[in-house]
Amino acid sequence: MVEGVRELKKRETRRRIAETALRLFAGHGFDAVTVAEVARAAGVTEKTVFNHFETKEDLVYSEDRAFEAELLESVRTRPAGEPALAAAERFLVGRYRRLAIDPASGDRARMFATLVAASPALRARERRIHARYADALCALIAAEQRAAPDDMRPRLLAEALMVVHGESLAMMRAGLLEGTPGDELGPRAVAAARRGLALLAGGFAGYAARRPG
Amino acid sequence: MVEGVRELKKRETRRRIAETALRLFAGHGFDAVTVAEVARAAGVTEKTVFNHFETKEDLVYSEDRAFEAELLESVRTRPAGEPALAAAERFLVGRYRRLAIDPASGDRARMFATLVAASPALRARERRIHARYADALCALIAAEQRAAPDDMRPRLLAEALMVVHGESLAMMRAGLLEGTPGDELGPRAVAAARRGLALLAGGFAGYAARRPG
Repeated sequence: MVEGVRELKKRETRRRIAETALRLFAGHGFDAVTVAEVARAAGVTEKTVFNHFETKEDLVYSEDRAFEAELLESVRTRPAGEPALAAAERFLVGRYRRLAIDPASGDRARMFATLVAASPALRARERRIHARYADALCALIAAEQRAAPDDMRPRLLAEALMVVHGESLAMMRAGLLEGTPGDELGPRAVAAARRGLALLAGGFAGYAARRPG
Repeated sequence: MVEGVRELKKRETRRRIAETALRLFAGHGFDAVTVAEVARAAGVTEKTVFNHFETKEDLVYSEDRAFEAELLESVRTRPAGEPALAAAERFLVGRYRRLAIDPASGDRARMFATLVAASPALRARERRIHARYADALCALIAAEQRAAPDDMRPRLLAEALMVVHGESLAMMRAGLLEGTPGDELGPRAVAAARRGLALLAGGFAGYAARRPG
């Protein structure tokens, strides 16, 4: 019981630090704000910040581990008979839909987009995070399918899913930076992701046939 | 006529420098050999090396522009009605097959594999080169298909093809480093690539269905 309250408080502190950091970074730029300033604004010590976040970049990508865990869980616990792609689609599309239904998530996403657009270091970090998602998905699918080492199909599926995710994020961020409201952007991103995922599901055999002449 | 001979000589010099560099790098390590040493061993001045290759890394990836041009050309000039995937498959599989039929290409590939395995800098460079291939393929397909900016399908196809290529290269290199002969490795890589490409062609809708229980 006591442990439960302690855990809850810890999570709340972590959330507050990350929100504060995002707001400060978005206002002044990622490089211009120090971890000490984040700590002060969040009402904690610098040591507390580093207890929760290993690096300054982790303050921005504070939800990457939760995202990864939920993505993997959605694939791992899919109904019997369901292909991995369908489970991943349900999870990803559900995420993009949040933008449409939760205005606070739109504000947060807009700050995020501003920040990442201005920082090559953060974009490089994000590429590494997405590569980690792909590795984890690939390992999960390969284990499930008992894939031979020469079987590149789990890797193909995992990387293709991450292309859809990356393109969907890029689209939503571009829209947010142009001031498109979340309830318009969300459905647009969902539709674009679904179109990409439909091609993945059905295959490229009939796609991009060369026109005569 | 004179121009033709000059061009031929220039290309021959370029080839000799790259072959010499690959041999020296493979023997002593990429970092341990200077461009001056490459020049001396190839019988040219350092200035001549830099006339042909912008950076030291380009000495290793001396064929990347030719590879890119041939890949794009194979897609651009495919027969009317043929999907882009089929054209890319013909080109890539033809490349992997060389390993089986040309012993010299096997020796070269083995040196290459040794070198890249030992150098994170070269691997990073290679990732950038593959990203450039994907960008070029994506741009070609998007232009052909007159894809809207929100249409992620050209990107999906281009990136998926580069996953197949990357996995095929990784497989061939691992085999080369284990001493597997080229005439055994080549067909194995071709079969693995074809299996991945078949999944791309047919789609992931039926792949990795969860087993009951």
